[in-house]
Amino acid sequence: MSLITPRTPPGTMELLPRRQIAFQRMLDTIRRGYERFGFLPVETPVFEVADVLLSKSGGETEKQVYFVQSTGAIEQGHRPDLALRFDLTVPLARYVAEHERDLAFPFRRYQMQRVYRGERAQKGRYREFYQCDIDVIGKDSLPVVFDAEMPAVIYTIFSELDVGPFRINFNNRKILLGLFESLGINEPETRALVLRQVDKLDKLSRDEVVGLLQGDGIGLDAATAGRVLDMIGFAGPAADTLAHLEGLGVDTPTFRTGLAELSEVVAALKAFGVPETHWRVNLAIARGLDYYTGTVYETFLTDHPGLGSVCSGGRYENLAGLYTKSKLPGVGISIGLTRLFYALEQAGIVTDGPSTVQVLVTQFDSALLPDYLAIGAELRAAGINTEIQLEPAKPKKQFAYADKAGIRFAVIMGPDEKARGEVTVKDMVSGEQAAVARAGLADWLRTRTG
Amino acid sequence: MSLITPRTPPGTMELLPRRQIAFQRMLDTIRRGYERFGFLPVETPVFEVADVLLSKSGGETEKQVYFVQSTGAIEQGHRPDLALRFDLTVPLARYVAEHERDLAFPFRRYQMQRVYRGERAQKGRYREFYQCDIDVIGKDSLPVVFDAEMPAVIYTIFSELDVGPFRINFNNRKILLGLFESLGINEPETRALVLRQVDKLDKLSRDEVVGLLQGDGIGLDAATAGRVLDMIGFAGPAADTLAHLEGLGVDTPTFRTGLAELSEVVAALKAFGVPETHWRVNLAIARGLDYYTGTVYETFLTDHPGLGSVCSGGRYENLAGLYTKSKLPGVGISIGLTRLFYALEQAGIVTDGPSTVQVLVTQFDSALLPDYLAIGAELRAAGINTEIQLEPAKPKKQFAYADKAGIRFAVIMGPDEKARGEVTVKDMVSGEQAAVARAGLADWLRTRTG
Repeated sequence: MSLITPRTPPGTMELLPRRQIAFQRMLDTIRRGYERFGFLPVETPVFEVADVLLSKSGGETEKQVYFVQSTGAIEQGHRPDLALRFDLTVPLARYVAEHERDLAFPFRRYQMQRVYRGERAQKGRYREFYQCDIDVIGKDSLPVVFDAEMPAVIYTIFSELDVGPFRINFNNRKILLGLFESLGINEPETRALVLRQVDKLDKLSRDEVVGLLQGDGIGLDAATAGRVLDMIGFAGPAADTLAHLEGLGVDTPTFRTGLAELSEVVAALKAFGVPETHWRVNLAIARGLDYYTGTVYETFLTDHPGLGSVCSGGRYENLAGLYTKSKLPGVGISIGLTRLFYALEQAGIVTDGPSTVQVLVTQFDSALLPDYLAIGAELRAAGINTEIQLEPAKPKKQFAYADKAGIRFAVIMGPDEKARGEVTVKDMVSGEQAAVARAGLADWLRTRTG
Repeated sequence: MSLITPRTPPGTMELLPRRQIAFQRMLDTIRRGYERFGFLPVETPVFEVADVLLSKSGGETEKQVYFVQSTGAIEQGHRPDLALRFDLTVPLARYVAEHERDLAFPFRRYQMQRVYRGERAQKGRYREFYQCDIDVIGKDSLPVVFDAEMPAVIYTIFSELDVGPFRINFNNRKILLGLFESLGINEPETRALVLRQVDKLDKLSRDEVVGLLQGDGIGLDAATAGRVLDMIGFAGPAADTLAHLEGLGVDTPTFRTGLAELSEVVAALKAFGVPETHWRVNLAIARGLDYYTGTVYETFLTDHPGLGSVCSGGRYENLAGLYTKSKLPGVGISIGLTRLFYALEQAGIVTDGPSTVQVLVTQFDSALLPDYLAIGAELRAAGINTEIQLEPAKPKKQFAYADKAGIRFAVIMGPDEKARGEVTVKDMVSGEQAAVARAGLADWLRTRTG
């Protein structure tokens, strides 16, 4: 029989075990951070009923959706009635609307699952990737102080992820919209185009963006375009930025509301214990137009600006208007871990770390296998992750295996050691060896493996 | 605009947060057990290339496969080129064959992901469900002592899962096959049918099974049918069972090999520290026919035999013959957690436990919100999972929320307490209240939340 070439589907990330351990550690850190802040776990099915998932006339999104159907349905020529989720926001909306009566509001949930998009396959673009989301959903209303909690979560998690210095950028879209009102830019489509061009301020020069604002579909005069950037291009400490905004002389209700919200977030951030070294108000960020209505967030790794934002989100008016009449405002953030992990690998920040396996009990003498099994059982009972070398092999090969696998300690016991009631423990990192009383082995290792 | 009814796809398990926490705790316990025994994590994409997944002419399996295709592919009338995995074994075979040169053998992996089958929707039957698998894969050979490690893993995990008494049953299929040889039952199809009927010994009486063995498609004479059950129907302690097998006078090579393997597993189990109260040799279990070739396992909850086996597996000759010429024997087990969780819920064993949120900082006086934020930040920095009541509400409502949500401790601070440098902590389980110095709060709570 001819062999079938084993191959991973294109556009997916599949890792060797030691790399998977590094990925899993990041997932665990994120989850621990989310739980630290009192978010509750939710998991939803990988697929949704197609007409529920695609109720919003999607355009670009719908083109990327993967449909699912069973063999029987294909044969009968049915249209697929299931589709893979393309984000965690639509499933959250469906979940909250479906279980509304059983949930307590404000509802704080985290969800860390894979999502699916039929992207064109290319490096760093994934068709299957993890999103790690939190959202707080209010019923009818949700105080602005919740917006200040999000940077506190980001700060905690990115500090623990150990990915180097980072900074959270945030803004309030009402400020941008208020500025538009003050400048007489009233067409929703024009505003959308202006915001899209303003988003390019981190990539293009001021003059280039002024040019774009005068160009096709927008057509601001040069003075107005310049004024837009005077207002938005300001950079400085939060107190100065708030003063700058106060000094603009803009007085529309939207602008005043936005400025009040932004000031409240800035004040609360201090009480949440987030140092200003790790955040700034960035008046130029806007995120997409349709969804976010107040505070918006982006997060950048200082040493790797090219990665773009590694954690983004914002405040929205109503989560689930397609599914329920209840008004459900919310605020949330998302970490796209697969893409981040790929970028960190490319940048050499993620490498193979220590294994989850902490100890290898080597097989020095096959006649002593029952002793090795007993030692392994003792260590496992003490909570130490232990592999027992069950297959005879040369000692050199066993050490080489422990070394390559990232296992920290190797336990060796021959007949002489057994007679003395001792074992030898080799630290594979330092190369040091120690004679340890057999009876105290689990304690000895436990203090060294945490 | 008319609303769309939000609904979970049929045949999927979606849980409310407190139930999800209980599910997550079981997943964590299983993962911790697998890591304790030195298994390494692997995750594979939810879909596989269709011709890789379905290379084995599947019959029943293929009818249940979900195919995946993007919008574009449907419009162009293409056949789907992706399909959702229906178990974790085929992806493991593909993974090991694809990454063979990068893996160390024996390769010990765990994988805990969802799989998909287009089952007819009915209670307790799932189209999407978790499998939690471990396997050890050898290159060319794999010593039998690995077969004794599996019950040690099952024992550790099911003890920690807290699902009541359980017992691991195991057998060796070579013994069954050797008995067939000795009885002159040589047709593979007849053997398969005999094994299938023997599997019914736990549901039917001996006479009924004797009848089935004489019936259509098998046609044993009454004496041979009786001898089959004399051999296999024996029940007793392991030492007696081994003596019973020795005393049968059967001497075919297959039988002798099977008996030697079974004896070795029984002997090693003691060294692995698995008490005989929690396992037995059960000569009547056989599992499916095609795949397993040596040791086979089933696990039963003593108080809930109706659930059937909650953890099964066995030894196989060659994992990935479809994808590689290397001979890769292995042994593994699987826990179907979604189905188990459903059954445990039905039996009332799984209920809502304590929340992952350990402390609620209540909002007694909105003027003190900055203090509440600071207290929350302190507790979180001390590793305590803390929710801060950010929305003003009556104290009674806040306590009711903590109680319903399963949050153990509520922290209360009014102006008087603040002036004294104290807070009040209410234990929501015992109802007791304690005055605690603000400066010592994190330590006080940490010793009580573990």
